[in-house]
Amino acid sequence: MKSLRVFGISGSLRQKSANAGLLRFAKDHAPSGMTIELADIRDIPFYNADLQEIPSPVQTLKDGIEKADALLLACPEYNYSIAPALKNALDWVSRAPENYLLAGKPVAIMGAGGGMGTARAQYHLRQVCVYLDLYPLNKPEVFSNAFSASFDGEGNLVDATIQELIVEQLIALQKWAMTIRYKNQ
Amino acid sequence: MKSLRVFGISGSLRQKSANAGLLRFAKDHAPSGMTIELADIRDIPFYNADLQEIPSPVQTLKDGIEKADALLLACPEYNYSIAPALKNALDWVSRAPENYLLAGKPVAIMGAGGGMGTARAQYHLRQVCVYLDLYPLNKPEVFSNAFSASFDGEGNLVDATIQELIVEQLIALQKWAMTIRYKNQ
Amino acid sequence: MKSLRVFGISGSLRQKSANAGLLRFAKDHAPSGMTIELADIRDIPFYNADLQEIPSPVQTLKDGIEKADALLLACPEYNYSIAPALKNALDWVSRAPENYLLAGKPVAIMGAGGGMGTARAQYHLRQVCVYLDLYPLNKPEVFSNAFSASFDGEGNLVDATIQELIVEQLIALQKWAMTIRYKNQ
Amino acid sequence: MKSLRVFGISGSLRQKSANAGLLRFAKDHAPSGMTIELADIRDIPFYNADLQEIPSPVQTLKDGIEKADALLLACPEYNYSIAPALKNALDWVSRAPENYLLAGKPVAIMGAGGGMGTARAQYHLRQVCVYLDLYPLNKPEVFSNAFSASFDGEGNLVDATIQELIVEQLIALQKWAMTIRYKNQ
Repeated sequence: MKSLRVFGISGSLRQKSANAGLLRFAKDHAPSGMTIELADIRDIPFYNADLQEIPSPVQTLKDGIEKADALLLACPEYNYSIAPALKNALDWVSRAPENYLLAGKPVAIMGAGGGMGTARAQYHLRQVCVYLDLYPLNKPEVFSNAFSASFDGEGNLVDATIQELIVEQLIALQKWAMTIRYKNQ
Repeated sequence: MKSLRVFGISGSLRQKSANAGLLRFAKDHAPSGMTIELADIRDIPFYNADLQEIPSPVQTLKDGIEKADALLLACPEYNYSIAPALKNALDWVSRAPENYLLAGKPVAIMGAGGGMGTARAQYHLRQVCVYLDLYPLNKPEVFSNAFSASFDGEGNLVDATIQELIVEQLIALQKWAMTIRYKNQ
Repeated sequence: MKSLRVFGISGSLRQKSANAGLLRFAKDHAPSGMTIELADIRDIPFYNADLQEIPSPVQTLKDGIEKADALLLACPEYNYSIAPALKNALDWVSRAPENYLLAGKPVAIMGAGGGMGTARAQYHLRQVCVYLDLYPLNKPEVFSNAFSASFDGEGNLVDATIQELIVEQLIALQKWAMTIRYKNQ
Repeated sequence: MKSLRVFGISGSLRQKSANAGLLRFAKDHAPSGMTIELADIRDIPFYNADLQEIPSPVQTLKDGIEKADALLLACPEYNYSIAPALKNALDWVSRAPENYLLAGKPVAIMGAGGGMGTARAQYHLRQVCVYLDLYPLNKPEVFSNAFSASFDGEGNLVDATIQELIVEQLIALQKWAMTIRYKNQ
């Protein structure tokens, strides 16, 4: 069986972002049969329906998503909802006529933030997935505290419990993706 | 009594945006005792905690909010949640140590979008208001269909029912703002 | 291939409920390869962790769910959220140790209500599904207006557009259930 | 100035409920100028639009709310949303033509539950408040862990940090209620 190609997108633009740290850990510890590539959304402008052309960083993002079997979203929480950079990246990709890039894809969601580990933002993101026709994994949910010893000063994940949870989530995503792939055939 | 200064922010960056059209109508039909100024958030970059300085368009936004007694938010809906440009503007303003600019301010929310008139996005925005300590008006809610004859080709609101609803909302905001001002004394 | 057994639960207790009407229509127009049975939750008491025994109407509900391959939920909206009778029925079924009755089951959601057709309640219900490990269908969503000519005086669905939408949803559920069944093997 | 009359409703029906424990603590530690009475919603049946008469326990609840200046809601979380008994009590009270019992009343929300302290349910409850025209306090939010040493075996709150937070919330409610009372004059 072919390896599962997962594409990871972090909604934080900070250099030492804990959310980027979650994705780096996932990439370095992907289970057998899975490869993870990470997006760079730093240069994506705000979506504006007046723009006639797809900006080049958006096209790069779309290419990454098109090749992927599944998405891995690291979802920061700002003010009890989704980080705009992540939402904006998804909004661009959803732009007609290419929503088929997203429709039916399996997704796993993780996040690092304040006390609730971005839970509030993640539930908003799940509602976004309904429209995008993305299929988020139910469990395990990954909530981590970005302002704790779970991360070092460079944003690297050093907490063993969260590390194990991420590996568990990736394995669940792998199983879930096999299901969805079956659906899309 | 002093006139109530309302500051309006539209989350859409389109030239002919129906959400901007809602705010223009509101500005031109503000009830006696209310003046409405409109923000321009077009040049605000994505929030990034690494940035040490407040970008100039963010400072202009902050100045507008600081002078205002109340906010009027025109909330587009993209993919069942808030337009990133609007969320991002609020995220910038909430940045420490100046959240006091928002705390306790009364807010009215309106929106133009698909079939449900941005309702899904508006409920997400209301959750954002909890953290920002903004006090959104409960009623009347303003939901309008951007893809109908309610708007002309320039994004101007031409539907009489929605026009009346907006005036009704502004009057309710005026009463609500008097309450909140009392609280903040 | 075996016929897909779908179990329908309406959250309204009214005799002439439009939500029950949606389910009746679905039952009578199930596509080939699907049979639909309807639950009766009228005698289910409020969940109370002090109760040591499963009340008999709850056991009947559990039996129905256990035999089913998929769920069809008719979700009324009261005061912008889920009808307590529906939420309560699900809460009972989720009670340990038998959550396995729900975990991994595909679900379709429909609703009849005010102007937004119970959309607000349906998004809350989708969040409930995350914890219950139910997999709701993304599309098509079914929103209908209970206070319109879409229903006759007995709560029967008479609107052709909604009728077609329900059939379309059932066919999508059928496909979706095949996917999930594969997952659970 | 008259004392502020607060009416507390717990959504849990358990004898040793931690949510009831939160309300008992609040009642026993109400700040000067506030009295708290607690509702008993145990005998309230499910709302059913077919019922022509208001059941007697609903009338008792309505009487309590009518006399109150503010509400204090202890919100359990079942399966990531509101406990049906609490939602149902509010649904009954909202029944026409007496929604004026709720409209404009200030509310404080607290909860004891799993790891996030019923946060998910509380945000759903806040959306319910929009329709009911209740005005929930933004801050402080009260989230407590019912399955920890914060509560004794009888459901009494024994954690000093949460105790202080509740007193802080009651004082904030008192100030907020003065604001709303001003509005309603």
